[in-house]
Formats: sequence, structure tokens, C-alpha cells
Amino acid sequence: MTAESKPEGETRLRAAILGASGYTGAELVRLLARHPRVDIAVLTAERHAHQSVADTLPHLQLLDLPDLLPISEVEWSGINIDVAFCALPHGETQRIVAGLLHATGHTLVDELIREETADLGAGLDRDIKVIDLSADFRLDPPTYAEWYGKAHQAHALQEEAVYGLTEFARDEVRSARLIACPGCYPTAALLPLLPLVEDKLIDASEIIIDAKSGVSGAGRAAKEASLFAEVSEGIHAYAVGAHRHAPEVERQLSRAHGEDVVVGFTPHLVPMNRGILATIYVTLTGGSTAGDVRERLAERFRDEPFVGVVPEGPMPATRHVRGSNYCLIGVMQDRLPGRAIIVSVIDNLVKGAAGQAVQNMNLMWGFAETAGLEQAPLFP
Amino acid sequence: MTAESKPEGETRLRAAILGASGYTGAELVRLLARHPRVDIAVLTAERHAHQSVADTLPHLQLLDLPDLLPISEVEWSGINIDVAFCALPHGETQRIVAGLLHATGHTLVDELIREETADLGAGLDRDIKVIDLSADFRLDPPTYAEWYGKAHQAHALQEEAVYGLTEFARDEVRSARLIACPGCYPTAALLPLLPLVEDKLIDASEIIIDAKSGVSGAGRAAKEASLFAEVSEGIHAYAVGAHRHAPEVERQLSRAHGEDVVVGFTPHLVPMNRGILATIYVTLTGGSTAGDVRERLAERFRDEPFVGVVPEGPMPATRHVRGSNYCLIGVMQDRLPGRAIIVSVIDNLVKGAAGQAVQNMNLMWGFAETAGLEQAPLFP
Amino acid sequence: MTAESKPEGETRLRAAILGASGYTGAELVRLLARHPRVDIAVLTAERHAHQSVADTLPHLQLLDLPDLLPISEVEWSGINIDVAFCALPHGETQRIVAGLLHATGHTLVDELIREETADLGAGLDRDIKVIDLSADFRLDPPTYAEWYGKAHQAHALQEEAVYGLTEFARDEVRSARLIACPGCYPTAALLPLLPLVEDKLIDASEIIIDAKSGVSGAGRAAKEASLFAEVSEGIHAYAVGAHRHAPEVERQLSRAHGEDVVVGFTPHLVPMNRGILATIYVTLTGGSTAGDVRERLAERFRDEPFVGVVPEGPMPATRHVRGSNYCLIGVMQDRLPGRAIIVSVIDNLVKGAAGQAVQNMNLMWGFAETAGLEQAPLFP
Amino acid sequence: MTAESKPEGETRLRAAILGASGYTGAELVRLLARHPRVDIAVLTAERHAHQSVADTLPHLQLLDLPDLLPISEVEWSGINIDVAFCALPHGETQRIVAGLLHATGHTLVDELIREETADLGAGLDRDIKVIDLSADFRLDPPTYAEWYGKAHQAHALQEEAVYGLTEFARDEVRSARLIACPGCYPTAALLPLLPLVEDKLIDASEIIIDAKSGVSGAGRAAKEASLFAEVSEGIHAYAVGAHRHAPEVERQLSRAHGEDVVVGFTPHLVPMNRGILATIYVTLTGGSTAGDVRERLAERFRDEPFVGVVPEGPMPATRHVRGSNYCLIGVMQDRLPGRAIIVSVIDNLVKGAAGQAVQNMNLMWGFAETAGLEQAPLFP
Repeated sequence: MTAESKPEGETRLRAAILGASGYTGAELVRLLARHPRVDIAVLTAERHAHQSVADTLPHLQLLDLPDLLPISEVEWSGINIDVAFCALPHGETQRIVAGLLHATGHTLVDELIREETADLGAGLDRDIKVIDLSADFRLDPPTYAEWYGKAHQAHALQEEAVYGLTEFARDEVRSARLIACPGCYPTAALLPLLPLVEDKLIDASEIIIDAKSGVSGAGRAAKEASLFAEVSEGIHAYAVGAHRHAPEVERQLSRAHGEDVVVGFTPHLVPMNRGILATIYVTLTGGSTAGDVRERLAERFRDEPFVGVVPEGPMPATRHVRGSNYCLIGVMQDRLPGRAIIVSVIDNLVKGAAGQAVQNMNLMWGFAETAGLEQAPLFP
Repeated sequence: MTAESKPEGETRLRAAILGASGYTGAELVRLLARHPRVDIAVLTAERHAHQSVADTLPHLQLLDLPDLLPISEVEWSGINIDVAFCALPHGETQRIVAGLLHATGHTLVDELIREETADLGAGLDRDIKVIDLSADFRLDPPTYAEWYGKAHQAHALQEEAVYGLTEFARDEVRSARLIACPGCYPTAALLPLLPLVEDKLIDASEIIIDAKSGVSGAGRAAKEASLFAEVSEGIHAYAVGAHRHAPEVERQLSRAHGEDVVVGFTPHLVPMNRGILATIYVTLTGGSTAGDVRERLAERFRDEPFVGVVPEGPMPATRHVRGSNYCLIGVMQDRLPGRAIIVSVIDNLVKGAAGQAVQNMNLMWGFAETAGLEQAPLFP
Repeated sequence: MTAESKPEGETRLRAAILGASGYTGAELVRLLARHPRVDIAVLTAERHAHQSVADTLPHLQLLDLPDLLPISEVEWSGINIDVAFCALPHGETQRIVAGLLHATGHTLVDELIREETADLGAGLDRDIKVIDLSADFRLDPPTYAEWYGKAHQAHALQEEAVYGLTEFARDEVRSARLIACPGCYPTAALLPLLPLVEDKLIDASEIIIDAKSGVSGAGRAAKEASLFAEVSEGIHAYAVGAHRHAPEVERQLSRAHGEDVVVGFTPHLVPMNRGILATIYVTLTGGSTAGDVRERLAERFRDEPFVGVVPEGPMPATRHVRGSNYCLIGVMQDRLPGRAIIVSVIDNLVKGAAGQAVQNMNLMWGFAETAGLEQAPLFP
Repeated sequence: MTAESKPEGETRLRAAILGASGYTGAELVRLLARHPRVDIAVLTAERHAHQSVADTLPHLQLLDLPDLLPISEVEWSGINIDVAFCALPHGETQRIVAGLLHATGHTLVDELIREETADLGAGLDRDIKVIDLSADFRLDPPTYAEWYGKAHQAHALQEEAVYGLTEFARDEVRSARLIACPGCYPTAALLPLLPLVEDKLIDASEIIIDAKSGVSGAGRAAKEASLFAEVSEGIHAYAVGAHRHAPEVERQLSRAHGEDVVVGFTPHLVPMNRGILATIYVTLTGGSTAGDVRERLAERFRDEPFVGVVPEGPMPATRHVRGSNYCLIGVMQDRLPGRAIIVSVIDNLVKGAAGQAVQNMNLMWGFAETAGLEQAPLFP
């Protein structure tokens, strides 16, 4: 079969995807392989190192792609990478990113990591930008230490990183060197919640997020808990009161609210590959109604290419966004007086990960924000 | 192949299952066919009338069972039915039940229905008892009329019916002539909530029930919304703020609380056959803690054969109860101060329908409460 | 949110999609909505008539699309349709297509249908082309009558129609006025079988096709047999020895072979939305080996953009082609001496239906054959 | 909650289940926990050693069961085990079984293993019987060595073991000390094929078995290939021409046929937890018809409690046997002249593993063959 061609004659980026064999990494490959302004120059994988794309990501075998290398074997020199997408485990990520960015932080910790990682990106051009999809740059240092059990090793970068919830951070994203892409649950929850907290239409101290996720969110690591037979034909809540996406949501809501916000957050695992549905229970303030909330959100997202607010009626389903970069939001009155129910859906691997990463890349290089992301949802 | 024998020499019931070709009816057949004290004498079905069990319920084809008749063709005379299980659509049920019970109600409506249904159970023994699995006898008359859009036709029976949440109604069930088996969602929600509301450990005005159900709960009717391709690989909320199980839950909680209770209730459809998981968000009162709540529930259900309260740690999953009459309950502290999260799981077709019906039957005839219900959950 | 723009300044087609609310129709909408050279001008639906795309195909609600009309209400005059895609039930299709094409056939049957359907496409430009996805134009008249229980009503069109298995009919497709797109099972089976039968590498009288399909192949009609609970967590064979795709496969193989071919064909229903996997058991002739077969197929499809032959090793899976227009083929030696096993996978809604239809359209109007079909498979 | 009681006053077996935390082991626990004549005295697990049943098999947490021990920590002395069920990995099994049986084999290999395993079952009563569910005792020594890559270490036991396809080996099973329970695929294939090969109704040299299995057949080990996201929403063939169940089927068919038989066997992985469906393509001999085949099978299995042959019409589905010890068989004429298609379905964990093991145990101790296995299939 023949390779397909991309438009010639325009600026093109050369991208590296680190951690390409996981589900998030594979999704980056899928999106970028068709992106009109990007060439995939480097793919890395550790568990699947030295395998071809045909072996590891057989759904992409008809595309023309490089083999998977371990990061340590990448020859950065001379390959002119513009952007590195990191889909690596947390902890490991901070070390790699520091190395790639030749980080010149100000703290002792940063100095240490600088030494350790000095050679990681040796030969890289200075102006590489990093779009990170791990949790490593989403939290502030003390919260990170509390939730991940040890101090972050690259504080300066942690502070430099822009939290890339695109619809709320366009200006910062455009000029960023390091993007921390939001987690999948936080993306689904924050898109509807941020405008409402900003406008004080809801009580920021009584937000309950009951979230449901597909299994790809647990990654491709071989764990008993992710086996088909452990997950299909059933549903369960996990990490109740203790999921690391709670402080991430709280950090952003606290910024919007102006003071500390704590949220209730209960994730559930649903027997489906893709999708997050967040059912959010909120207390309305100052006499506002579910209709006011819906109208405010519709207004806020009117010009957004990827966010839709559905009219009163059936609530959005995850299958309405599968494979796309969309977020759909619905709002209904609760039976409990003075309360409303918000439902928000995304594809965790697209808007909740790889799609949002590409959306941020588009902004950073001045491409159309929808470039490479026009694909409509796949149903059924 | 050969039929298997049941123990001889003990009182045996002769049962009719009306609506045997739906999922709830089929589950009654499955359970009763193996019940040591019951013979299945009559099976009815309308859509699948005149078919054999092999045609309609091929999973039961190796059992020795009567063919399916339309109700109108059952010859009640001489077949000595002791108990009728009704797994019929609401509305239609009240007419059938009135006919079977030769109802001598006191209202005009009841008189009318008495005439209309005079011949329905003609020939039946006087002492038949009815265990109903529809919604027809779960609500009080005005609430029924409000939520089902027309007046109930058998008010006297509606008032006579015992709400068969077994663990909370044993004495009434033992002497009842007509049982209204609870809905599947209400069973999952009420088992943990009733003791807490009774003991005022939680605030009855702030209960939020986020419920997730398998697709068998939607019944076997051929509807686009229940097609595999509409339901698999996704999740959605439905009937938000408007599901008929909300007033059913509220009626029971109001009784326990002593004054009117309104609850938030949001059902979701999950791509699995069986199971309900209710995630219940409650506000603790009087300084009680999640631990107090867990302990109270553990104490309340200590001697119950079918209800288990799990210790602090992983929450129960629907796959831990699949195919069984169990309800498992977990309790955890919420991140929101003063709040707790309760998770309750059942198999909607067993404890949420057919199993609870059989459990009630066991009580009504003085059998061991677990008779016919000892089957352990099927996993995976 | 904002609509996205398509390239200006090139020839653009105006397309009608008849039967847009079924799964095949919806897939046509999904593909054509992003096609760089097509505008969707008309969408029809009968069951879902007068609904918006947001109501019926909510996954496409963020696209800018016309509402669904019943065919009888389409005002053909003045809307300048170039191409009509028909995703309608068989039987009904022949009547509609005859009307659209102002068919001037030569038989009595055709005359009758001409009268009946005279007004169907009144006002339409003369040069409309029809790409049909039903079974109506795939068989010859006597076979059609035998398998569909009544005579075809548009014999002349039946004979004119080009069987659009693109890779084997490019020249005919380019000049066709009416394309009969192959069925999903035949597409999966014929792609590997045709070259082998042509080259006499296998015995045409001993072909056994064991096929497995996702549930979307059964369509969106509300049937008990397609309910989630009837289909999930199980597999079964259906229409054994009697499926209408058998004569379709046989017709094409007979042409290639030069004499009548009969095949064994057993379809199975698998609990997945999309995908067909055909496991084909063949007897090798003239000393040929599985390696010869693989090599022959690799050579035959070397320049095809959508067909890939995998090397010896793991066989292709349906999830490697989900959402794409790909067909992947693998070949292995059987344990039975002198026999080989061929596995062929497609997405039944894309290469097995809507994608192949678009591929044919691209040929008919001289677009790049891959236009609108570049999307890589979606995994997981 | 309260434990339930079992009947008193009859002989009761004390059982050990080795490898109780895998799916097969857990299924043995499920079945034996309810068996009227068995007490579970020992549960072992290596990966999940020292965990409680509540932790490892939470679906069984309401039963009264011992904690899981590593085999090396079991104190065999004084616990009076009658029967050991082995659900351990192949290779390891032969060592354990040899130890448990104090094997006094005649070959050098056996002597070696005797030394190595001398202490394994130290203290055990002499008359323990072993029912093995691994592949270790299903093949003859040379075939084992060929397919498993090394010599078997307990030849004498290998020869002593009875192949426990119950319906074809009752006399041998009754007096056996060591049962080799058939594999899941072989059970599904052999039940219909053995009578036909014995009676020469089919050509033994042209049998093609296209088999489809649920994912629990791959076991509970944490492998990438068994992850939900790798397996759901798709189907694939694996181990094409190279699956270890092929020689197992061939060994039994060869015995029945009187000379060596080779079969075509292609397994596929289906996104469901339980179930095997074998579609078997056979050439009829001596003018026999599909009807003859069906009749012969119906006659052969007429008095079998667990095997049913369905009349002409719809073929059996795996969901008709889920959770039960049933095998259902259907037969249809093929389109290819002189050929028939047989479909056979079982639950791989019950009739294909734990259920058949219990059925054999019932025979060995003279219990009713159906004891503990009366549970009807669970649908949906």
C-alpha cells in the first residue's frame, strides 16, 4: 500500500512522542500522523522498545512511522525536534522533562536533577517545547509532595509550567515552553465548573463530582485490576475520597474562586474503553436556577469549537464524543430544591489527553486550533 | 437428558409466573425451578404466547417447564395455584391482580375494576397470594396518579399491599396477601439509608443518590434505546430529576423519618447486563463520622443472610453480587467535611426483583428465608 | 461553537443521504461531513423524520447539518444534488432508486415501477448518480427473486448496476451511474478470495467462510434480538446455511472462477459494535503453500491504499481497523495438510459500507481515492 | 450475616483447592461451597497468598471459607483431606501432584521427582484422590514433550491418569486416583465429535473446528493481551495452527477412530467473560445427512443430565449455558454438498473446567452426578 502525502510548502513541526506505546501515546500518534503540519520524527517506548509500530500499535501499521526506541537510545542531535509530547509515568517524567529543557532552575533540587539528566537531551535544539501529559506539572510543590509521597525534583519547571486547559488559558499557552495538560477527570469537571465558580452562580464549598471513566484511563500496564474479566459486566467506585485528581481540580477551582476550595470526588470504573462522564451536583446561589447555569455555560462556550452545551432535555452521553476532542455539557434542575445537576462528557484519550495536547500545540505554533482534530465522533 | 428430582414429602407450593418471558419473569423461573418447595404450574407471556420455554428462554430449555400461555387462556380452575408472581407492565398489573384476588375494595374505582376483571382468575382458590414486581402497588394513590399520569384503579389493594423490602418488613410480609416488591433502585438505596434515617445519623434533607444500572433493568421490550449499539461502549444519565423510583424512595424514607423527605436521584445506564451500584452522598449529623455510619449498618445487618457491610477499604462492586440475592454496602469519609459516601450494590434482577420476591415468599409460607437463594455470585 | 470551513475554489459535490438515521447512514454523514469536496445537502429518515441531527445522531450535533426529512417531502427541484447515497431497506430501495434515476428500462416490471415512482425525484438534475448500500442491486434477477422471495421491480437497473468492490472494479466504477456497494461480509471474504480463485491457487469448490460480525451490522431497527442483554456476554451463529450474503459471495467468485461456485458461509454475532472478521478455510491446489497465498495477496494489494497483508505471525484483529476504511489480511498454514487459513478484517460500517461507498464516489468524480477516508483506526 | 448450613449425617468429603485465586479455582470454590457433600478445608494461592477470600474473591466474601495459603505452608497432617483439586499452571502441576500422590513411578524421571517432592504432601492420608484441571496429564509423554517443550517429569502418573470427559469415561472415572480434566476447547469439540467418529458418520480426516472463547479462558494472570482495552470491542484469532488443545482433541479422536486423526483448529478471543462456542465443519460419509448426525447425537445424549441436542432451527448460544454445567449442540446442513455444520456451546469455567471436575468427583464418590451442579444458566 502507499503512504499518503501531506500538504507541502508550509512550516512543519517535527515531533517526538515519548511513551508512544501506551494508550495516550498511541492516541497522540493517531492524531499527529494525520496532522497537516506535523511530522512524527521520534517514537519512544520502554516496555515495547525496539518493536515496530506494526507489533505494538497494529492499528497504525499502514502508516509510515519510525520504530520505537528506548529514550536512552534516541540520537537527539541533528534530528531537529520542535516539540516533545511526554506520555510517561509520573515521577519519571520530571527527570526526562528537565533533561529535555536543559532546565536552569533555582533550587537545590533542580540543580541535582540538572546534573543527573544533563545528557538526556544532549544535542537537542534549544527551542524545543514540551507538552506533558503526566501529572508531574499539574500541582504546586507541597500538594505534589503530599499526594505523590515525595518531593518534586524540578520545582522551577513545576512553577513555570502552564496548566493547559485550553479554553481557559489561551494566552499563557501560546507563549509557554512547558504545558501541563490537565488530567482526564479534571478536564471533564473543570470545563463546566470554572465559569460557574468564577461567576459565583454556585456554592464553591458544596461541589460533588461523581465521575465515571472508561478503562483506557487506567493505562496499558498489565495489572490484574484492568483485566477484561475484572472490569467487564460490572461497575465499581475506586480511590473513594483519595484520588489524585481531586487536588488538581481543587487547585484550579481555588484560583477561580479566590480562596481554597475542597470538592467531593468519586471516580467509578465503567466497562467501556473510552469516555468520562462527570455528574456534578451543585448548590445554586443567589436565587440562580438550572436555566441560568445552562445559559451562562452556553454563553461562555458559544465560540468554542470543541465545547457544546445541550439544551434542556436528554443529557449528553460519552458515546456522543467518542474519538473526538469534544466536550458536551448538560444541566438539569435537581429534585432537591436549590440544587442543579450538571453532566459533562469527554473522550478521556482525546479532550482528556492527546486531543487537548494537540489543541495546545496548535495554539503554541499559531496553527488553526482545530487542525488535526476535526474528526467527528465515532458512533456506534 | 433427565429431569432432576426435588425433595418429596414436604408442603409444596404451586406457583404461577405471569409475564415469564421478560427478564424479571425469566429470573423468577430460574430461581423457582430450583426451589426445593415450589413447583412451577403456570407460565404466562403475551408477546411470546404459545411458545415453549426452549423458544423464548432457551437458557432454561433443559428444565421441565410448561409452555407459555397468554393470561386469558390460563385455566385457573383445578390447578390449585398457591402463589402468583406478577412481572407485568404497570397499569395492566393492577387489573390482573384485582382479578386474581377477587378484590372486594371499598371505592368506586375498585368496584369498576371488580366487574371488569371478574373472570380473570375464575376458578382460582380463594387463598391465593400475589407477589407483585411491578410499580403498581408501591406508591400511595395521589403519588401514583401524579407520576403515572392517571388514577390507580384498585385503591383498596393499593392500601392493603405490603412493601416487601424484606429486611424491614418481616412481620407484615408474613401475613400479607399482596406484596409490592420494591423497585431495583429503591432496594439498593433504602437498605443503607433506612437505618441511618431512623437513627438520625444523617440529614434526611440532603441525600443525593447517584445510581448506575445494568441494561436488563430496562426490560426486554424492543426499544431503540436498549439496542446493543446504543448502550455498549458508553454511559449516560437518563430521566434526570424525573425517575419514578424517586417518589418510591422518598415514601419509605419519609415513613422512617417521620416527615416528608425529598431526595436527589440520578440514574445512569451502564453497559452491563446486571447490577445496580448506588453511590450515596450524605451529610452527617450530630458529629457522627463515616465510621459511625459503617458501624451502625454493620450492626443492623449482622444477622441478615443477604446483606453485608464491608470493612473500610475497597468499595463493593456489582460483580461481587451478580446472580445472587446479596446486597453489599461500603462507607467512606468524603473529602467534604461532615459528609460520607455510601456505596451499595445489588443484582437488579435478584435482590432488586426476583430474588427479593422469592425471599418474601419464603417468609409468607414459613420456609427457610434463604431457600432457593443460596447460589453464590457468578464471577467473572 | 463555530463551524469549520472546507477548502474553497474546487469542484464540490452536493450529496443526499437517504436513510441517514440508521447506522450506515449515520456513518455516511460522519465521513462526508469531513470530506473536503462534498457538501451534505439533504438528509432523509422515515422513523426519525422531522428530527434534528442533534436528536437522532447526537454524536454529530456540533456539525452544521440539515434536519432529517421523509423522502416524500424532499424538494429535489433547485437543490442541485449530484450524488445520492441510499442506505434504505432492501425492496424499498429499488423503487426509490428507479425514481431518482428516471429509469428507462426495457421490461414490463420496469415500466410499472417507472409509473409508480415518476414523481419521486421530480425536479432532479438528469445527471445524478446513485451509490446504493442496500442488497437490491447486488444479485442477478433470478437469484434475487429466490433469496428475497419476490421478483425485483427494476431489472434494467439491476443489470446496469456496477458491483462496487472498489479494488476489483475501478474502471467500471469510474463510469457508472449506479453502484451496488458490496455487503459487509462479502467485502471481507472477497478481498482475499478473488485473487486466489482467479489464479487458481485454491480449490473453489471447498471454501468455508466462518464469519464474525459486530452488532451494528444488524441495523438500528428495534428488534429483541439486537438488545444489549440479548447480545452482550455471548456469541452465537445465525442464519446457518441460509444467509443472503452467501449468494452474493458466490456470484462474484463464480465470475472469477468461470463456473459456478458454492461456498460454506456461517455468520456469528459478536458482542462488539463494529467489525467483521472472516476466518476462511481453503484447500490449496497444485502444490501451493500458505506462503504462496500470502505472497500472492501481498503482491496483489501492494499499491492499494486500504488493503494490507500482514506478514507471517499474529493474525489481524477487528480492532486494528475500527473506524477506518482498511482491510487487513493474514494467512497461516492449517494443521490439516494441504490447507490454509485466511483471516480478513474490516470495519463493517466503513470498508463494509459507508467507507467503500465514499471510495467509489471518489473514483466516480476523479477525486483522490483516499479523500475523506484518511482517518486512522481508533484503538482502544 | 449468618452462615448457611449443609445437611448433616451423610458422608462428607474434605476438599483442598490448589490455585484457588485464579478463575478456575474461584469457580471450584463457588461450586463446592454449595455442594451438599463437600467441605472446603484448604485453599491455596501463591500470588494472593495470606489474603482472605474477601480480598481475593470478594464475590464469595459472605461465605465461610478459610484464608488462602501458599502450598508450602499447608499443614497436611491431621486435616484429613479426601480430594485435591489442582488449578495450577502446567509444569508446576506435575510436581505438586506427584508429591500429593506419593507417586511410586517406574521411570528415572519419576524417581527424581519423587525425591524433590517428598515433603510436599507430608502427613497426607494415603487415599487422597487428585482431580487436575491443568494440561499436565492430558497428553501422552511424547506429545507432551513436543508441545510443552520439555519432558514430563511424572510419566507413570501421566499414564495412570484418566481423561475425565465424564460422558465418555464413567467407569474409568469411578475407580480413578488421578483425573485429568479435559481442556475447555476439547470439551466443547469432543462431546459432539466422539460419537460421530466412533460411528463413522463423518470423515475423521477433514474436521475443521473454528472455536470462539470468552476471556476468562486466558486466566487471571496480569498480561497486556488480556486487558479490557485490548480485548473488548473486537475479535481476533490466535495461536492459529498452533494451539495446545489441538493435540488433546486429536488424541481422543484418534482413540475413537482407531488411527491417527489430525484436526484443523482455530481459536478466537471474544469480548465476553465466559463461554466457548465451537463451530465444527464436517464431511458426511456414506450418504449420511445433517439430520442423521443430529439424530445420532440426540440418541447418544438422551439420558445425559448436562448435554442437550437442540432440534433443527436456531443454533445454541453461549449465553444459554452461562454459569451452568450444560453443553448444548446443534446441527445444520451446510451449503456445501455433503457437509454439515455442528455448533457446540459450554461455559468454559463450568463444563469446560470446574463443573466437569465436580461431576467427576461426584462419580468417584458415588454421589448423584448432578450434586452441586443443578444451578440453571444465568441469563442475561
